[in-house]
Amino acid sequence: MIEIEFIGTGNAGQVPVWGCQCRACLRATANPVYRRGPCSLAIRTSLGVSLIDAGRTDLAERYAFDDIHRIILTHFHMDHVQGLFHLRWSERSRKIPVFRPDDPLGADDLYKHPGVLEFQEPFIPFNTVDWPDFSLTALPLNHSKITLGYLLQKDNFRLAYLTDTIGLPESTEEFLLSTGSDQLDSIDYLIVDCSEPPQKKLPKNHNDFNEILHIYKKTCPKKVILTHISHRLDCWLLENSSLIPKNMSVASDGMVLSIR
Amino acid sequence: MIEIEFIGTGNAGQVPVWGCQCRACLRATANPVYRRGPCSLAIRTSLGVSLIDAGRTDLAERYAFDDIHRIILTHFHMDHVQGLFHLRWSERSRKIPVFRPDDPLGADDLYKHPGVLEFQEPFIPFNTVDWPDFSLTALPLNHSKITLGYLLQKDNFRLAYLTDTIGLPESTEEFLLSTGSDQLDSIDYLIVDCSEPPQKKLPKNHNDFNEILHIYKKTCPKKVILTHISHRLDCWLLENSSLIPKNMSVASDGMVLSIR
Ligand SMILES: [Mn+2]
Ligand SMILES: [Mn+2]
Ligand SMILES: [Mn+2]
Ligand SMILES: [Mn+2]
Ligand SMILES: [Zn+2]
Ligand SMILES: [Zn+2]
Repeated sequence: MIEIEFIGTGNAGQVPVWGCQCRACLRATANPVYRRGPCSLAIRTSLGVSLIDAGRTDLAERYAFDDIHRIILTHFHMDHVQGLFHLRWSERSRKIPVFRPDDPLGADDLYKHPGVLEFQEPFIPFNTVDWPDFSLTALPLNHSKITLGYLLQKDNFRLAYLTDTIGLPESTEEFLLSTGSDQLDSIDYLIVDCSEPPQKKLPKNHNDFNEILHIYKKTCPKKVILTHISHRLDCWLLENSSLIPKNMSVASDGMVLSIR
Repeated sequence: MIEIEFIGTGNAGQVPVWGCQCRACLRATANPVYRRGPCSLAIRTSLGVSLIDAGRTDLAERYAFDDIHRIILTHFHMDHVQGLFHLRWSERSRKIPVFRPDDPLGADDLYKHPGVLEFQEPFIPFNTVDWPDFSLTALPLNHSKITLGYLLQKDNFRLAYLTDTIGLPESTEEFLLSTGSDQLDSIDYLIVDCSEPPQKKLPKNHNDFNEILHIYKKTCPKKVILTHISHRLDCWLLENSSLIPKNMSVASDGMVLSIR
């Protein structure tokens, strides 16, 4: 069995944004259920936990050292890696493998002082790595830093995790359409960056809701789950949740998908 | 009145270190009183809170936006600035002034995307700035990044906060001896980096306990408080607390000095 937990579903500002008095932020301040930490997943299999991104800064509280099997990074923006600056100073002898895109800069001094982290050779886009617990394929995304989305496959189950991005590169879109055994065999879950409510101008580094509808139409997944959500999207959803299509949903921190 | 709280007293690894089973780390895991967060102070005056360093990542939980009057950085190592990567995305109109050493690199993309933070012209070493609530003098330290300690003065009260450092530059030592009204008028508190227990070889970027005894003898403060403490020092203290001189003490998270 694989358990996939959304341990963070917010954008870099998180929800609540510090000092913000908007409806979404006040709601999240009053009721922790509505909080959104830095966007990340925890994939639990019989081998342990694979983190996709490490922007939460309470990872040492959440996970025993032995729980963490591997870490997979989408990109080196701080909201996706800031939790590593504490974890790295563990003095355990086992190194934790950290998989990553081919970004020679990394973040601050992480490459220089990796501590217990063992940065692996960068993923090659569209290459699939077959681990004992699941397979993973790196998919290029459109963002202000070199960024990879991931297709997770286990037997017939297929889940794409695509954040941070604005739209999708054509090559990634084509790949997603081609992975099934036939044309009608669409992917099970498309988890995708929807940072913003519908914008008049096309946004720069993150999807707005209009772009999500566009991606949805093009990739035809069985289910869409929105993540990397800003307080602006949360405010918009308070009035416009009826505009969300039937097989689309909005992630929340702590939500779990169980795959048998 | 001024209230000075040690909101963090640990080194970069903090206590407990992730996955560590040493006596100090087990004690801190069992009893939060013994935990040590990233080394930092919160100075509360009638104007609000001045933070010295922002390595804690729970600052948005601890302080309302309006509480924070200014932020003062000793240097741009991650354990002293990592908390800013979330705070910066506040959308409040007031900017928070951030005072700092003359480090043109900063940390990661903080200078590029400061958000609500307003980085001030760098401090000039040995210059004193007179704010309405207290005066502050920047003092050069010996560290692997450009680093400043600070002398805080309020009427006749004088407190030096000196971390991260190995020993003290001669100029800083001389300045500390010269600030009183006469030779016998030593500073009230010397709060100083003591990351390590006594080492056989002189350590590189942080003081060990031997170096502390040396600094103490040279600067003759009324009281010494040790901070930036590693789990190694905590383990050593479990056996050797009798070696601590009478007017020296070890800081702990949450400890408060009240100055009238
Ligand atoms: Mn992001
Ligand atoms: Mn990003
Ligand atoms: Mn430090
Ligand atoms: Mn340092
Ligand atoms: Zn808000
Ligand atoms: Zn330890």
